[in-house]
Amino acid sequence: MAETQFTVIPGQHSIIITRVFEAPRELVFKVFTDPKLVSQWWGPKKYTTVVDKMEVRAGGIWRYVQHDPAGNAYAFHGVYHEGLAPERLIYTFEWEGLPGHVSLETVSLEEQGGKTKVTDIVVFQSVEDRDGMFQSGMQEGSKESMNRFAELLVKARTLAAA
Amino acid sequence: MAETQFTVIPGQHSIIITRVFEAPRELVFKVFTDPKLVSQWWGPKKYTTVVDKMEVRAGGIWRYVQHDPAGNAYAFHGVYHEGLAPERLIYTFEWEGLPGHVSLETVSLEEQGGKTKVTDIVVFQSVEDRDGMFQSGMQEGSKESMNRFAELLVKARTLAAA
Repeated sequence: MAETQFTVIPGQHSIIITRVFEAPRELVFKVFTDPKLVSQWWGPKKYTTVVDKMEVRAGGIWRYVQHDPAGNAYAFHGVYHEGLAPERLIYTFEWEGLPGHVSLETVSLEEQGGKTKVTDIVVFQSVEDRDGMFQSGMQEGSKESMNRFAELLVKARTLAAA
Repeated sequence: MAETQFTVIPGQHSIIITRVFEAPRELVFKVFTDPKLVSQWWGPKKYTTVVDKMEVRAGGIWRYVQHDPAGNAYAFHGVYHEGLAPERLIYTFEWEGLPGHVSLETVSLEEQGGKTKVTDIVVFQSVEDRDGMFQSGMQEGSKESMNRFAELLVKARTLAAA
């Protein structure tokens, strides 16, 4: 299976996450933006993710709530900005447990001979915020999400072919 | 008059703008967030700025349209995020002439013995975007806006004292 790559240059504000998926771009975009599918890949498998809001349009709000097995809930939200289906998604990201800290994500989808390369550029308000997020276990969580995403793509292609 | 300072570190994603104003924080915050006042300081004096939308609350939209003497119009918009009056404002920024390019601004207001230090941290999606914006004349435009802002504060204080 393709690996998720992380680029974290010391002293910069960004984390760049890339992954190549064995699926056409339209399908990858659909799995990114369909609320019924997002709850099946977003976050670690041991948590349950509930999509509270997901208005994929400029100015629209998204909000996901994660529930862990102990009964705790963690909520995240942001705002979609000017996008360009199926090439680009831009949105902000906040964890409600840490108000005032916002990051900006730009997801680009490039089709390469039936595969799709996804590049997610996340920029933080400061280098300290970036380092803190990266050290908080974001890498493992993100890898797991991307693996779940790839599995879901296989299922979606199988269903589409049936 | 106090000077506007710019911090632009090579290879980073941010521009940090600081300025100390001779006014209490509540008043500085008001001048930042009152639509009737924004049109009097935002942008260079030779342009006319019309505030089309300005919903200062999490998820609210702002949109300003600048008109130059030749009759051209330039529109800018963004979304307010979680703020904390009168300490902090967070919002995104887009120029409608360049879709897909978004920056994220965090404005902090600290009161220091009757004066207010404003720190505006602007982060861009890439170092190239940051450099492009800085080289496009943003520094002169921003200095002029901050000078107009300071003049307006003097007027506002005089009116309040009258």
